[in-house]
Amino acid sequence: MPVRFARHSEVDVLIIGAGPAGLMCANALANARVNVRIVDQRAFKITAGYGDGISPRTIELLQSYGLAERLLKECSQIHLAAFYNPSSTGGIELTKRTSNITAPSARYPFEAALHQGAIQDIFLDSMSSLGVEVERSTMPTSIELSKNEDELTDPTSYPVCVVLQRLDQSEDEQQEIVHAKFVIGGDGAHSWTRKQFDITMDGEQSDAIWGVVDFVPDTDFPDVRNKCLAQSNYGSMFLLPREEDRVRAYVQLEDRDVINPVTGRVDKDRMGPEEILKTAQKSLKPYKLIRKSEFLWWTIYSVGQRVASKFSITNRVFIAGDACHTHSPKAGQGMNASINDSHNLAWKIAQVVRGWADISLLSTYESERRKFALELIAFDKTWSTLVCEKPLTEQNSDGVSSEHVLKTFQTDFTSGIGIHYHPSVVVNDTYQELASGLILGKRVPPYKFMRAADGRPFELQDLLPSDSLFKLLVFTSEFSDPLQQARVESMVADMQKPQSFLNRYATPGDSRFDVITICKDRKDKFDFLQLPTLLRSHWSKVFVDDTDPTGSFGGEGYSYFGVGPEGALVAVRPDGYVGAIAPLDRVEVLDAYFASFMKITA
Amino acid sequence: MPVRFARHSEVDVLIIGAGPAGLMCANALANARVNVRIVDQRAFKITAGYGDGISPRTIELLQSYGLAERLLKECSQIHLAAFYNPSSTGGIELTKRTSNITAPSARYPFEAALHQGAIQDIFLDSMSSLGVEVERSTMPTSIELSKNEDELTDPTSYPVCVVLQRLDQSEDEQQEIVHAKFVIGGDGAHSWTRKQFDITMDGEQSDAIWGVVDFVPDTDFPDVRNKCLAQSNYGSMFLLPREEDRVRAYVQLEDRDVINPVTGRVDKDRMGPEEILKTAQKSLKPYKLIRKSEFLWWTIYSVGQRVASKFSITNRVFIAGDACHTHSPKAGQGMNASINDSHNLAWKIAQVVRGWADISLLSTYESERRKFALELIAFDKTWSTLVCEKPLTEQNSDGVSSEHVLKTFQTDFTSGIGIHYHPSVVVNDTYQELASGLILGKRVPPYKFMRAADGRPFELQDLLPSDSLFKLLVFTSEFSDPLQQARVESMVADMQKPQSFLNRYATPGDSRFDVITICKDRKDKFDFLQLPTLLRSHWSKVFVDDTDPTGSFGGEGYSYFGVGPEGALVAVRPDGYVGAIAPLDRVEVLDAYFASFMKITA
Repeated sequence: MPVRFARHSEVDVLIIGAGPAGLMCANALANARVNVRIVDQRAFKITAGYGDGISPRTIELLQSYGLAERLLKECSQIHLAAFYNPSSTGGIELTKRTSNITAPSARYPFEAALHQGAIQDIFLDSMSSLGVEVERSTMPTSIELSKNEDELTDPTSYPVCVVLQRLDQSEDEQQEIVHAKFVIGGDGAHSWTRKQFDITMDGEQSDAIWGVVDFVPDTDFPDVRNKCLAQSNYGSMFLLPREEDRVRAYVQLEDRDVINPVTGRVDKDRMGPEEILKTAQKSLKPYKLIRKSEFLWWTIYSVGQRVASKFSITNRVFIAGDACHTHSPKAGQGMNASINDSHNLAWKIAQVVRGWADISLLSTYESERRKFALELIAFDKTWSTLVCEKPLTEQNSDGVSSEHVLKTFQTDFTSGIGIHYHPSVVVNDTYQELASGLILGKRVPPYKFMRAADGRPFELQDLLPSDSLFKLLVFTSEFSDPLQQARVESMVADMQKPQSFLNRYATPGDSRFDVITICKDRKDKFDFLQLPTLLRSHWSKVFVDDTDPTGSFGGEGYSYFGVGPEGALVAVRPDGYVGAIAPLDRVEVLDAYFASFMKITA
Repeated sequence: MPVRFARHSEVDVLIIGAGPAGLMCANALANARVNVRIVDQRAFKITAGYGDGISPRTIELLQSYGLAERLLKECSQIHLAAFYNPSSTGGIELTKRTSNITAPSARYPFEAALHQGAIQDIFLDSMSSLGVEVERSTMPTSIELSKNEDELTDPTSYPVCVVLQRLDQSEDEQQEIVHAKFVIGGDGAHSWTRKQFDITMDGEQSDAIWGVVDFVPDTDFPDVRNKCLAQSNYGSMFLLPREEDRVRAYVQLEDRDVINPVTGRVDKDRMGPEEILKTAQKSLKPYKLIRKSEFLWWTIYSVGQRVASKFSITNRVFIAGDACHTHSPKAGQGMNASINDSHNLAWKIAQVVRGWADISLLSTYESERRKFALELIAFDKTWSTLVCEKPLTEQNSDGVSSEHVLKTFQTDFTSGIGIHYHPSVVVNDTYQELASGLILGKRVPPYKFMRAADGRPFELQDLLPSDSLFKLLVFTSEFSDPLQQARVESMVADMQKPQSFLNRYATPGDSRFDVITICKDRKDKFDFLQLPTLLRSHWSKVFVDDTDPTGSFGGEGYSYFGVGPEGALVAVRPDGYVGAIAPLDRVEVLDAYFASFMKITA
């Protein structure tokens, strides 16, 4: 280390960068009671601009941390999407107004639009209540990873050494050498962390150039509060509603207007927000789009579609968010991909730090999230190309048709609902047929069951909080049927054996599992106290698949999840994704599943 | 006044007593920016016991003040009711388990159970954020009401004079003479305020004696988390779930065990909580009901059904809550009646204090709430008698049948949904047929409409907050139909005339009306910007009666509210009750409605 008189310190996890990936990760780890620090070189938090779209799946995920309520209060909800194309009289006209979200199982069937600063505040306030603050004006100047194999495989060691430089303190307080078990670089598209380990970005830097302006409009455009794609003869633009009365316009620009011919790069001095708005106004004719406020934020961008070749160095240093993948904002995925990266990584790190899982579990971060990033880039390429093309008109017969655009738009991929992790140590690939609606590697879809003790309806997703625990959903089927009751009792006997995962991975005073029982019985007859006590650790843990007390909804959960009269055991990962399915009489399938990555506490 | 060196002060409204009626009133008036003070002789707020049931209508009402969210988080929700009767083998058995709420239009189809201290905290925190705190250790020692008719009819005068005594201050600071425009006595069953004006209580002091205990149980009783009425051979009892794992038992007692034969009154020294619990245990056999915690609260009560002969003295001094009506807690109405009294009174006082309404509006408080109190007392008499009776068994053939009990239980009266105010200056009785589902004098039922600008679903009740404004619901019917459009435009022209209520009662800088437009048009086609600007003061004020963007619900609002293709105008009072209905071409009906109580601002 080049520093002579620096302070030394130890931390379980050091996060570099307090953007969406870093803050999400810090909050998730703080939630899991992991010792975490987060640093950012900026002196102040951001208050406007940047990303702004939160997808349906990301809202579900924030809900699992108790953060969705505030987001939903502060955001603008985008329920509808409108497509405008050239009219026969010049200008544009409405071609189609339709649902903004295609995924039928979305719990929140809309996008949440809110400026990135406000979204980051939600994380900051949550972290703060858990005792974690961003250390600002702090930048890393060097990072070293031990090459000692014993150290790297020992989860209790601190093999990463990072020198932190404080930019706002006196000289002798400026430097600190942090010894970390794990380091996460959430430091953006130009990631310092990525560069220290020479991780390459694969892909092309070649996209059209777009301008972005945020403002409060005066307009007679009927779809100003919907997501709108206008493909006019003067170029394409997106118009998106934002919190309060604000909107954001993404406007396709001509290369010649923004590229400096000498450098060949985008030059922000060549075009300001007024010119971007003027271009938007031309595309939106005959509708007016006048600025009623100052510009709240603006930028010009040209992003390629690129993915990092690696997401981790020996499972000790990770990169997440824009550090791993860059793509255009047109599919509204920026913050979502970042937040989902960290959601995927945080619980795995928490399990390893606690000594509950083997360090090899961490390899699934790259395998799961890099696969997603490649799919995202592929989609973004198609979508970005499509929206930049000239629209099909009488004059332009090889333009793109609005049907084609709409069909590409209508995917469950952008909602985040479609994310599908492939088989691995944490995703089994057997017994899918026992619960065909709970797809191995996909998130558990929402459905409402009634609590057996009091008939109160509960959203299944709310029974699966991001609390570091694996959830065991026990679908007993009809417990009132004596034959099925015998099967359930036999399963419970199997789970009570010493080698069963429930006993094998028992941690005194700190359970790793939450058992939730869902019976196919009637709320007006069922006595849940007849269930074996293992299936009702508290009266609040037992549910029935029946209609709600007013008879308005519910009662089709077994059918929706494809669980038959024989029942099923479903292991759900701490991040809400289905990990394993087993028949009631094959508890050993779950024993093997957990044995593939869990460790017995010393 | 008997005081020589007291401080003098003025206040618009002085509230005596910080129970549910007083706190609800103080919070509602603070919300309406009325100058209000509230005093209570107790030094500390309560932290346990007392009332605990919040009815579906009261939850709706709290939601209209933004207070339901917290209640719903903290409370235990009671969705199911269970009825137990003697079994053939001795002990009791389940006769029927059914929905706890019968009113089909309840937005919250359950009761919320939470101890009164926690409910009062919700009001206290809300008031505090509005700058109003309870002045504790403060009791009134005298009250005088002016007899000067000019003073009494002048809404700007301060005709009530109350001497307040501080119990915790030095002698020369102890007294204050408060001159108030209005005084509200929310000072309970033994109301000091009521006694000062010799208001009599009509009715009988004759009820059976019941004991109440709060505790955490260890039990094998399957309905311990539901509302349960057990009518055993050893007496009747109610078991009610409470927040966390707590329960409350109401237990019928024998007179001889609790009445002091010398005084003829209940003597709490003769029976403690252990004995009450023992009586409960006998009734609940063969189920066990063991106490796992300390008793959190207990009492013994015997209450008659009585109603105050007057609820107001010359519309300057009012009584509310238990001061007006006493009844048994068995119908779960105590806090609800009190909260609803104040909800009814507060907006009327706010209108008068602002100079928006004539003081005579206040007479409708007594006419509306005393009618309700009489109905409540009648129901409570029937219900209390029924639950105290011996159950029908082979040995007791003239006992009460469980069908009879259930039928009496299943009313929309106890939910508060059934409350129906009769015609008065604020409740018209004409044109009901134009909106047969919006009953004049009843609360607006919940229904979800889609916001025209962005397709976002909104609960109609959330568009009717308790914000002192009258809401004008404009059901335009199908605006895209040219004939109907012409009718709507003609209606708007009528509303723009100088003598129209919108202009006549215009208050510069402070609107008294909120215009909400509900069109029967399609979200995928409709351009709401075609509506006259009077019907869209902001883009967020226009709704369509269409299905939600995912097609899951909605689109039947016109039919549910019985509004036909000709549309309707519906005036909703600030408390959410339907006040008047008019055809689109008879705006003068609304002019007359508002003229009957509104005043032109000087």
